[in-house]
Amino acid sequence: MMVIVMEPQAPMEQVSDVLRRLEDSGVVPHMSRESGRVSIGVTAVLPAPEQEVLRAMHGVAEISGVRQPFKLASREFRPDDSIVNVGGVEIGGERFVLIAGPCAVEGEQQVFDAARAAAASGARILRGGAFKPRSSPYAFQGMGLPGLRLLKAAGESVGLPIVTEVLHPEMVGPIAEYSDMLQIGARNMQNFALLEAAGRSDRPVLLKRGMMASIEELLMSAEYVLAAGNSQVVLCERGIRTFESYTRNTLDIAAVAALKQLTHLPVIVDPSHATGRRELIRPMSLVAVAAGADGLIIEAHPCPDDALCDGKQSLTPEMLAEVGNALPPVCAALGRTF
Amino acid sequence: MMVIVMEPQAPMEQVSDVLRRLEDSGVVPHMSRESGRVSIGVTAVLPAPEQEVLRAMHGVAEISGVRQPFKLASREFRPDDSIVNVGGVEIGGERFVLIAGPCAVEGEQQVFDAARAAAASGARILRGGAFKPRSSPYAFQGMGLPGLRLLKAAGESVGLPIVTEVLHPEMVGPIAEYSDMLQIGARNMQNFALLEAAGRSDRPVLLKRGMMASIEELLMSAEYVLAAGNSQVVLCERGIRTFESYTRNTLDIAAVAALKQLTHLPVIVDPSHATGRRELIRPMSLVAVAAGADGLIIEAHPCPDDALCDGKQSLTPEMLAEVGNALPPVCAALGRTF
Amino acid sequence: MMVIVMEPQAPMEQVSDVLRRLEDSGVVPHMSRESGRVSIGVTAVLPAPEQEVLRAMHGVAEISGVRQPFKLASREFRPDDSIVNVGGVEIGGERFVLIAGPCAVEGEQQVFDAARAAAASGARILRGGAFKPRSSPYAFQGMGLPGLRLLKAAGESVGLPIVTEVLHPEMVGPIAEYSDMLQIGARNMQNFALLEAAGRSDRPVLLKRGMMASIEELLMSAEYVLAAGNSQVVLCERGIRTFESYTRNTLDIAAVAALKQLTHLPVIVDPSHATGRRELIRPMSLVAVAAGADGLIIEAHPCPDDALCDGKQSLTPEMLAEVGNALPPVCAALGRTF
Amino acid sequence: MMVIVMEPQAPMEQVSDVLRRLEDSGVVPHMSRESGRVSIGVTAVLPAPEQEVLRAMHGVAEISGVRQPFKLASREFRPDDSIVNVGGVEIGGERFVLIAGPCAVEGEQQVFDAARAAAASGARILRGGAFKPRSSPYAFQGMGLPGLRLLKAAGESVGLPIVTEVLHPEMVGPIAEYSDMLQIGARNMQNFALLEAAGRSDRPVLLKRGMMASIEELLMSAEYVLAAGNSQVVLCERGIRTFESYTRNTLDIAAVAALKQLTHLPVIVDPSHATGRRELIRPMSLVAVAAGADGLIIEAHPCPDDALCDGKQSLTPEMLAEVGNALPPVCAALGRTF
Repeated sequence: MMVIVMEPQAPMEQVSDVLRRLEDSGVVPHMSRESGRVSIGVTAVLPAPEQEVLRAMHGVAEISGVRQPFKLASREFRPDDSIVNVGGVEIGGERFVLIAGPCAVEGEQQVFDAARAAAASGARILRGGAFKPRSSPYAFQGMGLPGLRLLKAAGESVGLPIVTEVLHPEMVGPIAEYSDMLQIGARNMQNFALLEAAGRSDRPVLLKRGMMASIEELLMSAEYVLAAGNSQVVLCERGIRTFESYTRNTLDIAAVAALKQLTHLPVIVDPSHATGRRELIRPMSLVAVAAGADGLIIEAHPCPDDALCDGKQSLTPEMLAEVGNALPPVCAALGRTF
Repeated sequence: MMVIVMEPQAPMEQVSDVLRRLEDSGVVPHMSRESGRVSIGVTAVLPAPEQEVLRAMHGVAEISGVRQPFKLASREFRPDDSIVNVGGVEIGGERFVLIAGPCAVEGEQQVFDAARAAAASGARILRGGAFKPRSSPYAFQGMGLPGLRLLKAAGESVGLPIVTEVLHPEMVGPIAEYSDMLQIGARNMQNFALLEAAGRSDRPVLLKRGMMASIEELLMSAEYVLAAGNSQVVLCERGIRTFESYTRNTLDIAAVAALKQLTHLPVIVDPSHATGRRELIRPMSLVAVAAGADGLIIEAHPCPDDALCDGKQSLTPEMLAEVGNALPPVCAALGRTF
Repeated sequence: MMVIVMEPQAPMEQVSDVLRRLEDSGVVPHMSRESGRVSIGVTAVLPAPEQEVLRAMHGVAEISGVRQPFKLASREFRPDDSIVNVGGVEIGGERFVLIAGPCAVEGEQQVFDAARAAAASGARILRGGAFKPRSSPYAFQGMGLPGLRLLKAAGESVGLPIVTEVLHPEMVGPIAEYSDMLQIGARNMQNFALLEAAGRSDRPVLLKRGMMASIEELLMSAEYVLAAGNSQVVLCERGIRTFESYTRNTLDIAAVAALKQLTHLPVIVDPSHATGRRELIRPMSLVAVAAGADGLIIEAHPCPDDALCDGKQSLTPEMLAEVGNALPPVCAALGRTF
Repeated sequence: MMVIVMEPQAPMEQVSDVLRRLEDSGVVPHMSRESGRVSIGVTAVLPAPEQEVLRAMHGVAEISGVRQPFKLASREFRPDDSIVNVGGVEIGGERFVLIAGPCAVEGEQQVFDAARAAAASGARILRGGAFKPRSSPYAFQGMGLPGLRLLKAAGESVGLPIVTEVLHPEMVGPIAEYSDMLQIGARNMQNFALLEAAGRSDRPVLLKRGMMASIEELLMSAEYVLAAGNSQVVLCERGIRTFESYTRNTLDIAAVAALKQLTHLPVIVDPSHATGRRELIRPMSLVAVAAGADGLIIEAHPCPDDALCDGKQSLTPEMLAEVGNALPPVCAALGRTF
């Protein structure tokens, strides 16, 4: 992969000339604008003479390679932080973002109650599962599209955009109609057809790390989405599988700090799946801020003991409010707002 | 789930009566015939009065529950070994089955050479990838359908049925047209849409264990295929992720013996992905026999050093022949033929 | 195990009566004083009549059992936080404690420079290895007692107590002569003879979690030290082994929060061994504060590139100072001082 | 490290000359005799002029280096298999060796019964724990020396040498008085003082792999024993810790084959601790043979349900006999006797 970095003041027509030249060569350009200058990435390797021509074009400052196996996701391609816009809420900027809501949409009362609790605690995006990936074919598989419509309505009732999981490539379209953000779950992190379908969507994507995926594999999966044309990707650390069984998974908090160094994409943390234990959500939420994460996604339920799934790790409205209250001072200590 | 066990000599019309009664109740019956008697599994829980009616029907010997979370896959449902037929080759019977071939189909010469080497070494099914799941969007993704047609032709040239990987639900149909068996890879073990699509196919399915999946999760994924109506499932242990990095993965050989105790489905071993090291394939092949596996799937390439993927773990034709020569005495010691 | 909880105002002579009665029964009492009341733990199960007698004694409020497998270490035995005193520095109280210093003592200049850098950055205990446990018999094994004397002198030169690792039971005495705290390393977490020897010492003990040890096993190892009579134990999370190889180990930050809930013992974090990467030490230090840890132990070297061991994970004096500067606001946000 | 390889027919006095020259230089020579020629290893790096002198001495064929981090343990130092003699029983030769006995010595009747069952099943060494390393300070810690004396007597009653675990360096001497082989357990694999003490003993050593130790770390620990002067080391794979919880640990069978390629030391398998499940011992025993292991160590108890430890993974005398009956044909298929 190569990056063509334009001069800081290069006028738009010079950028267009370069884009046209690249397209004429049959390669797909990926444009990134930051700190007032434009970079153009191409995932192909251009022949030396063609590089010479490009280097000589007006407005071109330099042409460089990207050594990391992930290209468009790397800080080599884009040094500045990316900001992803989810229905008006920015993830990756100065303001720390809390996403909250139930594991699964179970009914109107439940999801509207959950939405109110989320909003009241300072959450700015509502989460909820309508299509659930379950280990067992006999377990509750979610309410499907009717559930998604309820989630949308619940979000609107409190003014929050929503995020929900998509399981199959062919569902990207129908779900994108209702959902402000598409979640790709841990089990599907290497479902490449799904990554490509999400990459062709214009909805932002929340990509969760597989429970046994390496940091590099997560970035390579993000690269599938980016390479397909969708630059709105948020990564999510949600715990990896280890020998320790006290917690459901092991929160790999160093991965969050490492990702922030390796990629410009926003990174959030899911302490619910990472620990599987309600009593660890609050400290792990503060830990996420300290590690440099851009946000949190937390499971909360009006009545966790009745939840159809993941009740043990879901917060009550009161506990969620406590997390919301605990975040601001830690965010402030890290130079962020909440 | 409940199992309705018929009397050993129950005539077919009594079986039909029970099936009709179940279908009238709106439940889907799964039939299993073994040791001369029929069992009928239903994944729903029938109301007590309905159970009474069934228990009183002619030919019904007993009605019992299945405690394991996997139902149709369990030995509780079906105590006898299942035998899966792949284009005339039986997996799960007395005869141990070797599957061999290249990681990826790369061209006509390569795949025909590989087919000849496979057949010469005693392999009875030819493997080869036409659609490759790759961590990187920039890596070789396989030759696609033209590659699959080459694989089919190569198999026919030496009289071997073929198995190839299917990545998306919508490709199950097109691939089933050419391939005698559908492989679901480790990364897709919990791609439930794919499992269900394979479950609706009439092709046998080779289901590989995810590198992060527990034994129970593998069986639950098999259950998705079985519950969708396809009883022809072969499980494959291919190594799990651990801290040990000398080998690519860690072959969980105890899982093979455990699976043979828990399920009636055939189990095979993939020593190539499990170890990632050519020099360990031969001993791990013998290990598979000793653990009670029903077969092996091994990567072999006419010229591993030129392979487009997985060259380091691919056997040369000579090394594959050595494996073929080493298997018969160990199979014999375990009471099997090769 | 049973806990005899005394009345809040029980005079010392009533406590003495109970202790005498227990000793006469041949059991060893472990006393804990907190929030103005005394608890006495005995690891034996007393016969019912004897329990009756005790319950009737003056000043006895109640007798209860401890269900956790770790007894003296549990919050059931002692609900309040324990504070461990290391040469005048308290670990486990309101003030967060930074321990810093080189992996190994290499010479006078190096260790005095390291001590100055530690003190300048706000560290309050100096660490350094004189006896090094090395995977290879041919690697540098540490300077031994001469190195320990240098470490002691370096600590005194800047007014800091010291902590160093002890490898064998018979070295507990000689090392305790110089060192204010005894470190038991990860590889020795289940070296029970060493735990017992440290338990018979009057020096506080820093017990590191084994890289393969569960949270419960760590607490059981602490129990060995406590049961041998030494109640001054600090636990240290230093990363566990997982499949992820980007970092040297995986910092199990949820274990820190879990330990703070399960035990009254102070808990600190070693981000150096947990990550093995210099650039991750600062964020992981803040993470430790957020998780509720009572302190940090960090490797720092005057010139990491020349270090005889662990150079890649050692901070320069400048980087250590940055950590010292970053800690106060986060400590303050968590209600602690630095 | 360097290896001085002597001419095949070099007379003993030429070997002595080389040994004397090395000792005069202050380095410790390690001698290995195989296939009729002598090799002399030195772990120091000799200066070039000294190498010249040695190369010119009578009887010296060549001087070469060892690239592996483990030196004396490597096949580079000694290409031929080592054979370790345990009270007359050879481990590492053509004959496969079964070691069996109870987890812990519990009393006279139990250990004599266990010894008879072991001998009857074809075991040629008796195992039994007198000093038990237990996670909890409150668990049964073994009978100590009286237990060891019972084990010795039980072994003598059926003509079997014994192996037992040693936990501390200072116990090597007392235990070596009674035991024909010293076991160093998984938790002590990196207890370097213990390794060195065992290295100074003249008893053969059974070194178990730590449950989270890499293959290379196991070999480095063996190197500690070898470098201290004891060349009689047998390695034991006993399962590693992974996310899979169906089995107690995960038997890393590929490590057995890898070790046989990397080192000349004998390798055995402990299927009891590896699986923790009685019903998996038989298949895992056959698996060990197929992987190229030189023997097995299996827990068996006259009455497992009454065992003071590890009952769930202990075989009954009948099950042990079944293993003994199943081994010969598989050994024969691998070209070995039993």
